[in-house]
Amino acid sequence: MIPDTMRPPLITLTTDFGTADGYVAQMKGVLRGLVPEAVIDDLAHDISAHDVWAGALFLEGAIPRYPAGSVHVVVVDPGVGTQRRPMVASWRDRLVVCPDNGLLTLLWRREGAGPIHEIGLPCAVPGVPDVLSATFHGRDLFAPVAAFLARGGRPEHLGPPLVDPVRLPFPEPLILEDGIVVGQVIHVDRFGNAVTNLDRQLFPPEAAAEAVRICLERAPEKEMEIRMVRTYGDIQPGELAALINSGDRLELATRADSAARVWNIQAGARVTLRAVMA
Amino acid sequence: MIPDTMRPPLITLTTDFGTADGYVAQMKGVLRGLVPEAVIDDLAHDISAHDVWAGALFLEGAIPRYPAGSVHVVVVDPGVGTQRRPMVASWRDRLVVCPDNGLLTLLWRREGAGPIHEIGLPCAVPGVPDVLSATFHGRDLFAPVAAFLARGGRPEHLGPPLVDPVRLPFPEPLILEDGIVVGQVIHVDRFGNAVTNLDRQLFPPEAAAEAVRICLERAPEKEMEIRMVRTYGDIQPGELAALINSGDRLELATRADSAARVWNIQAGARVTLRAVMA
Amino acid sequence: MIPDTMRPPLITLTTDFGTADGYVAQMKGVLRGLVPEAVIDDLAHDISAHDVWAGALFLEGAIPRYPAGSVHVVVVDPGVGTQRRPMVASWRDRLVVCPDNGLLTLLWRREGAGPIHEIGLPCAVPGVPDVLSATFHGRDLFAPVAAFLARGGRPEHLGPPLVDPVRLPFPEPLILEDGIVVGQVIHVDRFGNAVTNLDRQLFPPEAAAEAVRICLERAPEKEMEIRMVRTYGDIQPGELAALINSGDRLELATRADSAARVWNIQAGARVTLRAVMA
Repeated sequence: MIPDTMRPPLITLTTDFGTADGYVAQMKGVLRGLVPEAVIDDLAHDISAHDVWAGALFLEGAIPRYPAGSVHVVVVDPGVGTQRRPMVASWRDRLVVCPDNGLLTLLWRREGAGPIHEIGLPCAVPGVPDVLSATFHGRDLFAPVAAFLARGGRPEHLGPPLVDPVRLPFPEPLILEDGIVVGQVIHVDRFGNAVTNLDRQLFPPEAAAEAVRICLERAPEKEMEIRMVRTYGDIQPGELAALINSGDRLELATRADSAARVWNIQAGARVTLRAVMA
Repeated sequence: MIPDTMRPPLITLTTDFGTADGYVAQMKGVLRGLVPEAVIDDLAHDISAHDVWAGALFLEGAIPRYPAGSVHVVVVDPGVGTQRRPMVASWRDRLVVCPDNGLLTLLWRREGAGPIHEIGLPCAVPGVPDVLSATFHGRDLFAPVAAFLARGGRPEHLGPPLVDPVRLPFPEPLILEDGIVVGQVIHVDRFGNAVTNLDRQLFPPEAAAEAVRICLERAPEKEMEIRMVRTYGDIQPGELAALINSGDRLELATRADSAARVWNIQAGARVTLRAVMA
Repeated sequence: MIPDTMRPPLITLTTDFGTADGYVAQMKGVLRGLVPEAVIDDLAHDISAHDVWAGALFLEGAIPRYPAGSVHVVVVDPGVGTQRRPMVASWRDRLVVCPDNGLLTLLWRREGAGPIHEIGLPCAVPGVPDVLSATFHGRDLFAPVAAFLARGGRPEHLGPPLVDPVRLPFPEPLILEDGIVVGQVIHVDRFGNAVTNLDRQLFPPEAAAEAVRICLERAPEKEMEIRMVRTYGDIQPGELAALINSGDRLELATRADSAARVWNIQAGARVTLRAVMA
């Protein structure tokens, strides 16, 4: 076993760049030149283009799984080159280098925000060119800053504290007086599973199927009741079912097909939860 | 040169998760936390969703190329959370961690099965949570088990031998009495090349073009003869040709285009092989 | 900091293979077996199929960002198995292993060609099989040669100098007598941005918006004037604008959408540049 002090720095990359245009390759090349001893993990480069919300959902799941000390570069950055601020945020001993546009909203919602520092421009970190490209801070700024941090550089050396970071509005479920909870679909994944904003804690222990009634609103005043199951394999062919997914949220799924396509479910679709009288 | 004993553990990941939803990122984060000294290779995350057969074809080509000692995590797992068994299979000194659903069928067909162990639940391996997600064993079970194995853990410590693994039916070619061999297309690749189940050994040495006649069945009783060539560049524009591919199977291809699209070839299409009288 | 002599070899992979068919996985497996101490970076595997020009544009951006000493395997190889020559090219202390089909055209245009060696066949490098697959030199030839080079092998040991490499024609802008420059779109990226062949040096310092007039030819004799901006965020909703991109070329873009789709811009579209009288 390698002692902790000999563990190489760990950097991850998450972008909406795709890989075919070479933007990611250029970022990696910069990192390899600056911090050749680092481990670099590609997390995703196919975040939906300019979709900060998709990036925030992605990071909510991924960053907590990575070990303390890891450095994460995230570039979903429609505002590149404008007044939006580049930043480094600390979150439970991990560091995230990204634009200040809300990418960390869901992490912060789960467990508060740690210290955040703006990356002041011009930036004296090795590898940052004197004149930044106005359109590619991932390569010219975020990658060198990540290399600096991965080698032990301190975020507070980069710029002043950033105390008012951008947060995206999270669509909190509505909890009505009669015990009804009104939620919505917030994401459709690759398999066509529709993830809602209804968290596990809204459900009775062990998600007892008998104790709740789940409905998908199909049209105003028209509902479709959905059975609660434990896993995908418990869904009947042709059935739309609900389960608590690996991110601890209620998710609508069907068997071996795309629930979103078959039932025409899109982000924003209303899903209600009712406790059943015992 | 680094002595073998200092080689870091080598783990690969193959899934049908895509990368945009973060499932792969979460698995990598778990691995980095448990076995930071490992090399982790992404093999593919775009195996066709739930397509165990596609996964089996993929592994048949990839696993034998990896060195002995490597550990391979494969998650194409439509039965996650059901009674399907999680397992570790040894194959020529490589270890594969995957669900027992037939993913290793084609490796076993090539060269028998090595020892297989079920991963008993609950599983005491470090990093496995007390309560597994019912929908994401890749993160909660297979990744920690791979870390355990990569650090020298023994498969037999995970659970009892698994003696009756699931095998997918392989569509063996029919060898008729008159010397005709009836095969079929089993895969269409990214380039639109149509791979058949006709192995190299069914052909004369050096695949002498003159000695065999290849036909694609276009409709009942209607055949299209196909010329045998050595490589893609030998195909004439507009021609459908056949060659022995890098996986030692007969493959139908056209020049700089998708044979599958141009000639409307799908998995299951019949391809016959006839020896020509000398 | 790790001394240079202890830095592991660095190999990158760029292909048009996609990942789902396992071709890339097989190449990686070969490399891991031959040079387990190497760092291997995936750059892209979704270069447009058989599109050598797209590969050349990709490499022009990526290779210079990688540090000296790195070894780059590039397989966009429609001529595999034919008379096209496999080669190793040195470019500013980086080595590129690829077919001789023009992939390095744009790097050479930027800064001349370094020494190039043909990879003679048969090739005695460890890991190269006696009989090469006629369709997969990436696995059977380029990967083992890259491993050989990454361990310090000399290109000149692979074969004779290659003095007449294939170069793709670059569509140079036409500079007319009246100060008009006629360029064209040479690439559309993932975001729908349309990159032209008009280099930064054709523009006045700081790309003063007032000093130039940019037009996109919509139909013969019909032009659309385009405003010059600094970055994407400066573009108005619904506007088509131009900027100098991170590759130092003029690029047409729109706000939060695909310029290519909205304005129906394809490779080859004419873009003119006129200096404005002071």
